[in-house]
Amino acid sequence: MQADTLFTRASHYNVFLKQWMITDIAVLRGKILFVGDAGSVGITADEIVDCEERPLIPGLIDIHLHIESSLCIPAVFADAVLQHGVTTIVSEPHEIANVFGMEGIAAMITASKHASADIFYGLPSSVPSTHSRMETTGGSIDVAEAEELIGRFNNIICLGEVMNYSELSANFDRLAAGDMESKSFRLVQYMQNTMPLAAIEGHCPTVRGLELAKLLYLGIDSDHCLQDLEGMKDRLANGMFVELQEKSIRKDIIEYLETHDFSGRYSFVTDDVPPDILAAKGHVDHIVRLAMKEGLSLENVILASSYAPAARMGFRDRGLLAPGKLADMVLLQDTSSDFSIKAVFKSGRRCEAADSAEKHAEKYEEKREGLASPGSRKEPSFPLHFYSSINLNASFSIKKALSLRIPDNKPPASQVSVRIIRKNKENTYTESAIRTLRMVDREVLWNHPDGSDHLDGSDHLDESDHPELEPKLNLAVVIERYTGNSGFSQGLLEGDVLTNGAFCSTYAHDHHNILIVGDNTADMESAFTWVYANKGGICVASGGAVIAAVHLPIAGILSEKPIPSLAEDVESVQSALRALGIAHQNPIMTLATITLPVSPDLKLTDKGLVDVQAAELVESFLFQE
Amino acid sequence: MQADTLFTRASHYNVFLKQWMITDIAVLRGKILFVGDAGSVGITADEIVDCEERPLIPGLIDIHLHIESSLCIPAVFADAVLQHGVTTIVSEPHEIANVFGMEGIAAMITASKHASADIFYGLPSSVPSTHSRMETTGGSIDVAEAEELIGRFNNIICLGEVMNYSELSANFDRLAAGDMESKSFRLVQYMQNTMPLAAIEGHCPTVRGLELAKLLYLGIDSDHCLQDLEGMKDRLANGMFVELQEKSIRKDIIEYLETHDFSGRYSFVTDDVPPDILAAKGHVDHIVRLAMKEGLSLENVILASSYAPAARMGFRDRGLLAPGKLADMVLLQDTSSDFSIKAVFKSGRRCEAADSAEKHAEKYEEKREGLASPGSRKEPSFPLHFYSSINLNASFSIKKALSLRIPDNKPPASQVSVRIIRKNKENTYTESAIRTLRMVDREVLWNHPDGSDHLDGSDHLDESDHPELEPKLNLAVVIERYTGNSGFSQGLLEGDVLTNGAFCSTYAHDHHNILIVGDNTADMESAFTWVYANKGGICVASGGAVIAAVHLPIAGILSEKPIPSLAEDVESVQSALRALGIAHQNPIMTLATITLPVSPDLKLTDKGLVDVQAAELVESFLFQE
Repeated sequence: MQADTLFTRASHYNVFLKQWMITDIAVLRGKILFVGDAGSVGITADEIVDCEERPLIPGLIDIHLHIESSLCIPAVFADAVLQHGVTTIVSEPHEIANVFGMEGIAAMITASKHASADIFYGLPSSVPSTHSRMETTGGSIDVAEAEELIGRFNNIICLGEVMNYSELSANFDRLAAGDMESKSFRLVQYMQNTMPLAAIEGHCPTVRGLELAKLLYLGIDSDHCLQDLEGMKDRLANGMFVELQEKSIRKDIIEYLETHDFSGRYSFVTDDVPPDILAAKGHVDHIVRLAMKEGLSLENVILASSYAPAARMGFRDRGLLAPGKLADMVLLQDTSSDFSIKAVFKSGRRCEAADSAEKHAEKYEEKREGLASPGSRKEPSFPLHFYSSINLNASFSIKKALSLRIPDNKPPASQVSVRIIRKNKENTYTESAIRTLRMVDREVLWNHPDGSDHLDGSDHLDESDHPELEPKLNLAVVIERYTGNSGFSQGLLEGDVLTNGAFCSTYAHDHHNILIVGDNTADMESAFTWVYANKGGICVASGGAVIAAVHLPIAGILSEKPIPSLAEDVESVQSALRALGIAHQNPIMTLATITLPVSPDLKLTDKGLVDVQAAELVESFLFQE
Repeated sequence: MQADTLFTRASHYNVFLKQWMITDIAVLRGKILFVGDAGSVGITADEIVDCEERPLIPGLIDIHLHIESSLCIPAVFADAVLQHGVTTIVSEPHEIANVFGMEGIAAMITASKHASADIFYGLPSSVPSTHSRMETTGGSIDVAEAEELIGRFNNIICLGEVMNYSELSANFDRLAAGDMESKSFRLVQYMQNTMPLAAIEGHCPTVRGLELAKLLYLGIDSDHCLQDLEGMKDRLANGMFVELQEKSIRKDIIEYLETHDFSGRYSFVTDDVPPDILAAKGHVDHIVRLAMKEGLSLENVILASSYAPAARMGFRDRGLLAPGKLADMVLLQDTSSDFSIKAVFKSGRRCEAADSAEKHAEKYEEKREGLASPGSRKEPSFPLHFYSSINLNASFSIKKALSLRIPDNKPPASQVSVRIIRKNKENTYTESAIRTLRMVDREVLWNHPDGSDHLDGSDHLDESDHPELEPKLNLAVVIERYTGNSGFSQGLLEGDVLTNGAFCSTYAHDHHNILIVGDNTADMESAFTWVYANKGGICVASGGAVIAAVHLPIAGILSEKPIPSLAEDVESVQSALRALGIAHQNPIMTLATITLPVSPDLKLTDKGLVDVQAAELVESFLFQE
């Protein structure tokens, strides 16, 4: 019989037989028809692809990521990851849901309709990530929204990461007894009842033993957070599916996986990949290379990058090279740990890298035109109002937002104790410190050269641990951009902070209000002004001028630019932030997560300072009663 | 913390670590909370079950069976299999769908609501098993019916076995190109589109190589038919899930599975278990015992009876003993191949055998009362009209149906060539033979002592292969019972047939019209009269009197009796049939599948003789032109 394409002399690993074989793979209408000696069963084909005995492996599958983290639209993202062998992704539109709620999710799914890779979606379970009393978002997702979205889109296939693991664990008895409600758990139960075959994705860093068992009991049975060896063993032994990010690729982890038979129980996921990293290092293939360098065999790589994630999600049409499966395939140069990709085939069709970059550059120009002249037939990717997502009150004063003062009902004094966010350069966790600052007429002199000279009663602070720490402070301001009320909050940062400049972003986890950080109000105002005028983006100002920026016109978090150009913009911002003193390897992220109220210990939302472990707002100023 | 039950000193096999351990298992509200040292994490419980270091394994899961084959209602079936450690089943209500269509499926699902084991359903894909021109059924299932049923019942979780594998394979090119429709393939595509996470169950005996690949290509990726070693290897290597019935448990099969690592890729299924076998031998546990006797390790038994079938169906809440999974557990006496069950726990609750048998005996009496006085509050299990499922025309004459005559438009002659169904005693496949029989006045003398003396031109017949075969004939008559037209067809059987008696049944695969078989018309009429008067059942008559019967009042295929009593009735029929000469180990089945037009080679439906391979009706009488 006649096939469309015959891949000959493919080096194919049969995951069931656990054997490599040189074989033919016949493809018909995008699916694999036959694996074996095609001649012996009389299969001929219109097109022959000679694999020259190189490994032909299933397309890579990434079941946990957020497209928005790459700041691009789904079609651009799909083309970009396809070049890296990724043929199927499950994205959780958590960020855009924080900006536009259900409508944001629907727009994201609609915008991925004709993407070149297969994009499935997880239903965001944690929008907002905490509560409306702790942060203001542009929408929230509860059962009613879930019901409508699932009814409308059949590519929503799982519940996205349940983030409030500490709340669930702390209230386990009441939740298990049905005596208490939690939005994320309500969504878990809704999914279990209406889509019992769908995965419930988890997020449970460092949780162990009985606390881990409680989360499993509640139905949350995967974890994509940073793994240590003992924690990972605990997860695997208790039936939790483990999703390995780049940061979890460590020698001891890989050695354990390679020497035990957990194939099918773990996979690689990228979670958040900024466009500059995507352009420079790659995607799942990058993690695979790291894992192989640490000793993971190609056989286990194949299982962890295709069979296991497909099984986890319940995909029946992909995840291995066998009759009936999609002809999503990656031709490798060889079996070495370089994991060098020679060609990628999506549904049997070869993907051309050059075409894709050009195509998106053209489309981007078309879309700009479309936006400029709304009558034009060149439609933008998202609904028009997504391009005007910053809603500030006409009476909003940026100068007032940038002035740090104690409340008017407090007596003026010469100094005040302030709770300060201690940022570090290693990760995105912060600590809390108390410092005493000088005041003049209720105004706190946070950026005065002498402002932080008078250290007093500082908690947790052990200078000997961090001899590099400067007593340098930054002001952080978060301005609510959804309701039109334009409420704002202020906080102070120390540690890995800016010098002689400012940063402003509408991409600020997870609520994506406007974040401004800087060591002087002039630059802070400049950065804010650029972001506001451009209706969204990330901006760095120094010396009173904008020195780098990424324009994010869609919901304030996405661009329509192709990845190479977007990566350049992002790299310019990263460089600028590094030049202004940020030591963390991902300066944008370390700043944009200052506002994330589910990441320990002390964070700042538009509602104020959040003590993350206590899940409570706390005061900035500590007055003696 | 406080659990409901603590199973202590359980010998537990962790399928991921591949290790046995003595441990505690804590259960809360029917689910497992914790596996490990309960004391070390402060878990106490209201009830302690000391497992005395015996194996505590997950409840057995059977993903392919038809409850109707056990002739009982779902609640009775669930209680019966639970005694054998089976806590979850996936039943395909194929038989009742042939009688009452969509309404039959809905009634079956409704009747299983409060069953003691968890009953899920497969959507029957092959009702009718062929076409309305080849058999008359009481309903048919196509996309519209699928849509309504799936919308209504969330426990329909897969597409039941696609039976017309030879048709699909023969028309592959056109089906793959979308140039041809087939009802079962339409249902496959419907499921793939609307329930992409649902399994598509297959039925593809003896298919190999490219033909097997074609079925996989079309989405059918399991097989529960009789396996031989090479065929099973072909299936496993190509990603097909293998479901092992009792008949597939053979030394070479088990040896291969035990020495290769296919755990997770095969399971045990019972398909059809008559009530007498269920009572005498057991259920999945019986197959497990056979497999263990052939050398399958308890570790592989655990995988094949719980983890693998759960994974195949996509169940996320069962299939292993781990936090969050249902506390469906079987306590074994020891690790020996006796697989002796000491206790069964469904959702943490111990199942009591004695209670169950008594309970059903009581309920049965109640239901009989309820039927006798429709005003009573004791409701029958099924809608009332299910108890009146035989619809014959007032003018129907049983005498005419039992008289075998050539058509009136044919000239009378002294003899006629007749196509005969050759039944054997080993399996349910038949062969076709041609015999020349004497006639008097257009009436064929099939049961005349000399009737079959004149052998002539017999096909396929090799007496030396079957020296035991008697030239004895039975008449088989199939009377259509749904439309009121009461059409009937006639055929002749030889081989493993009845002597001095007759059999009549409304349980006749798959269409369940009325089948009558016998070597004399007097007994055939007696058997028919009993079945008709009792509105359904299986009856054996000999010497002009009924000698054994099973009453099947619901749809003509189900009884409300508890298993022990039903098993007695069935055993009496089996014994009677054996006494009348049937040598096949399951006399009822060998007779009831004479009417199955998807089982090779020659079968008889109400429409006439069916050449199964050709999927065509063929003439009984062969006249010289």
